[in-house]
Amino acid sequence: MSKTSFTAAELAERLGGDLRNCPGDRVLGQVLPLDQAGSGALSFLANPKYHARALQSGAGLILVDPGTDLGDRPQLVMKNAYWGFAQVLGWLHPEPEPEWSDAPVHPTAKLGRNCRVAPGATVGARTVVGDGARIHPGVHIAEDCVLGEDCVLFPGVVLYRGTILGNRVRIHANSVLGSDGFGYVPVQGVHRKIPQVGWVEVGDDVEIGATSTVDRGALGPTRIAAGTKIDNLCQVAHNVQIGEHCVIASMTGISGSTTLGHHVTLAGKVGTAGHIHIGSGSVLTGNTMVGKDVPDNSFMSGYLARPHKQWLECQAALNRLPALVKALKART
Amino acid sequence: MSKTSFTAAELAERLGGDLRNCPGDRVLGQVLPLDQAGSGALSFLANPKYHARALQSGAGLILVDPGTDLGDRPQLVMKNAYWGFAQVLGWLHPEPEPEWSDAPVHPTAKLGRNCRVAPGATVGARTVVGDGARIHPGVHIAEDCVLGEDCVLFPGVVLYRGTILGNRVRIHANSVLGSDGFGYVPVQGVHRKIPQVGWVEVGDDVEIGATSTVDRGALGPTRIAAGTKIDNLCQVAHNVQIGEHCVIASMTGISGSTTLGHHVTLAGKVGTAGHIHIGSGSVLTGNTMVGKDVPDNSFMSGYLARPHKQWLECQAALNRLPALVKALKART
Amino acid sequence: MSKTSFTAAELAERLGGDLRNCPGDRVLGQVLPLDQAGSGALSFLANPKYHARALQSGAGLILVDPGTDLGDRPQLVMKNAYWGFAQVLGWLHPEPEPEWSDAPVHPTAKLGRNCRVAPGATVGARTVVGDGARIHPGVHIAEDCVLGEDCVLFPGVVLYRGTILGNRVRIHANSVLGSDGFGYVPVQGVHRKIPQVGWVEVGDDVEIGATSTVDRGALGPTRIAAGTKIDNLCQVAHNVQIGEHCVIASMTGISGSTTLGHHVTLAGKVGTAGHIHIGSGSVLTGNTMVGKDVPDNSFMSGYLARPHKQWLECQAALNRLPALVKALKART
Repeated sequence: MSKTSFTAAELAERLGGDLRNCPGDRVLGQVLPLDQAGSGALSFLANPKYHARALQSGAGLILVDPGTDLGDRPQLVMKNAYWGFAQVLGWLHPEPEPEWSDAPVHPTAKLGRNCRVAPGATVGARTVVGDGARIHPGVHIAEDCVLGEDCVLFPGVVLYRGTILGNRVRIHANSVLGSDGFGYVPVQGVHRKIPQVGWVEVGDDVEIGATSTVDRGALGPTRIAAGTKIDNLCQVAHNVQIGEHCVIASMTGISGSTTLGHHVTLAGKVGTAGHIHIGSGSVLTGNTMVGKDVPDNSFMSGYLARPHKQWLECQAALNRLPALVKALKART
Repeated sequence: MSKTSFTAAELAERLGGDLRNCPGDRVLGQVLPLDQAGSGALSFLANPKYHARALQSGAGLILVDPGTDLGDRPQLVMKNAYWGFAQVLGWLHPEPEPEWSDAPVHPTAKLGRNCRVAPGATVGARTVVGDGARIHPGVHIAEDCVLGEDCVLFPGVVLYRGTILGNRVRIHANSVLGSDGFGYVPVQGVHRKIPQVGWVEVGDDVEIGATSTVDRGALGPTRIAAGTKIDNLCQVAHNVQIGEHCVIASMTGISGSTTLGHHVTLAGKVGTAGHIHIGSGSVLTGNTMVGKDVPDNSFMSGYLARPHKQWLECQAALNRLPALVKALKART
Repeated sequence: MSKTSFTAAELAERLGGDLRNCPGDRVLGQVLPLDQAGSGALSFLANPKYHARALQSGAGLILVDPGTDLGDRPQLVMKNAYWGFAQVLGWLHPEPEPEWSDAPVHPTAKLGRNCRVAPGATVGARTVVGDGARIHPGVHIAEDCVLGEDCVLFPGVVLYRGTILGNRVRIHANSVLGSDGFGYVPVQGVHRKIPQVGWVEVGDDVEIGATSTVDRGALGPTRIAAGTKIDNLCQVAHNVQIGEHCVIASMTGISGSTTLGHHVTLAGKVGTAGHIHIGSGSVLTGNTMVGKDVPDNSFMSGYLARPHKQWLECQAALNRLPALVKALKART
């Protein structure tokens, strides 16, 4: 069922649609974003905001909805190109069968020196664990993971397949790295799954609290850079990129594809929209909900986020508002 | 200790209180809501809002506080009828002893064809698992569950007793279905537990993210209908009813007994009050907190929720408010 | 590597800095808060707000930043005293090696009468479990815990070392008690970990929902007093003290060192700042974010929290604000 590549003609036949500027025998073996795709890779244009990027893309084939002018780009014009993309992704990357073994540590896994794996923990096929690891009871590490040296995974931590941890990464109980990102495409009223074929990468000296979640990328990695600390019950969505030495307090959620610079502080219960950037050195106070890009070294609060001083003024003014409304009514 | 039924006279004696319009030898073997209770079932009136419903109830016996006129309804007038209800529930439904076995799959459980249960997962007594299941390491399925075909439970998922899953249900790591709802009744300053004797039902093609929780109903089911997708770190409280093809993003909490229509979208960090209805096709944007019923096809934002356009206007006006307050002060 | 005490001179040498009013051979074997430290204990002054407390402290040695006048107190004047404190803590309390055994119940653990430990659960070294416990599959209890009678731990619950539970404590699936608090000290742009050497104490008849987290204290306990009920997906940070018979609904987060009186109700999604007090009998409605102390018997709402009536007035006035702004513009 699984194939490692398709010709453009095969895709046109399977997906329906109209092939333009593309030889039918062109072989496509990857799905990549518009700006990363080369001639052997398929890409897609679903969001008009990326139109210019599509025009400049070197992708071997671009799936595109009817009515969008992509000039001389090789394209497959089809109804619901986004759904086309999801289907191709699934054909090229079907969910692999789990490769469980009776041995808690899979025979093909490699443990470094001085590693300790507790009874009841499992380490998956081809996973490589660096020296000095402490893998507590009930930890489950899936296939093809790589852990650096001196990592500590507390009980119940789950690493999905392909998760990469640096050195001295410390993850508290029942946190999950590498679960599917939340991605669906509506097809006639039904939410069809977009296969999440990326992975999670975590840098050196990262600590993650208990029962937090870091989803795998849809394409490519979700990344947490070195030295960043994440508290309990946080959510890091697919393809988020977090810079170095950030501090992210409990119950904060970072939506898909959002990027953080370095030394960002998100206090408790912060929420961010997806696809935005939070500049280096910025601080968002507790409960802030941010909907658009934040410049470097900002200090913001509120729902929606405003500069902290402005937010304080709004709060003070809001407290006076009921009296103000009454007074104005009395005058008129 | 456990009994399967009580006579009205026995209940009057155990609970204290005054039996009216009800023969002492009437046998009551169930506890049900006012509108579902028949002559063999006990019900209760704790919230004055349901007074009319109590007057029309066919319940064999209604527990009611002194001073409430229930006319000719069969009733047990007692102090703190709600606590009476909780006690009867506990007498009829004592928490069953767990039925663990040395075998990971209990001898009385039934697995379909082509099921795979990882080492370290457990399947409880009388549980039935449909064809093609993938039960990852560290999954614990309790007694009397029913899983449809091709379900995937990732590591650490917990299904409490009596959980029902449809076909192709996919639940990510460390999520919990069927834990007790959060229900207590204050008795002289102490919170006494209301036994949670319902269950969880999940329809076909539902996907639930990592470390989310779905509580069992207090009475009857908590229900998630077919095609609905729920993200990481979400909370679905007891007796919530979610319609088909809803999309519920990360960190959203739905309070007890709230109902959602079909094709509802709740963006991240949404919160709802309990006992409200959110109409089909509605969209609540990220961080919205909704306190009352939402009509079909609404588009709302804010704390508290307002129509999105109105919320935007309020936000804009709020930003001007500090200057406005100053200007008005200057004038007076 | 690990030592159980240091002389003042050794500390001065290891940390750098200037020893004052303290004999070099004074032995310090503990780290304690300023108001609890005696002559054999080290303490520190990092927050100017505690200056008076430092002046009255009986600590055998106080780490203090240059430029702070501590009069005749025994002191080690050093750059970044807070980091000095974290280092000493780590020297005195290095993270112990886990003491796993092949037996699910460690040979040195003690189980009371009528305890049941499911296959796949583990009970750590020296842990004492009271009579009648039900330890479900996949529960992991670490070293040196104490559980009272008739506790129920549902699947996947994790208790870190040193956790103390009273009688009839009930913890739902995948919740975590005793994970490290979120404490770091910035040292030249890098977040260095403050060892979390406290523990968690839970009183009688406490119930905790699914996938909630209670962090161990940094120093001393995080405490949840008898009769309190906590819902799913809640966060209780390090050194929080929760009184008796509180009710804390889902997705609520309580920041570090905050204290709650008795009979406090926090509705869903409430957030609190750290180091504040919420008075007995207070109610915070759903989604409230509280930033400062709350008097007893308050009823509050909003972000930021206001008395509920005032919040309602603000909400009503806010809804009128756009029209008001327009009207005022028209006049000028």
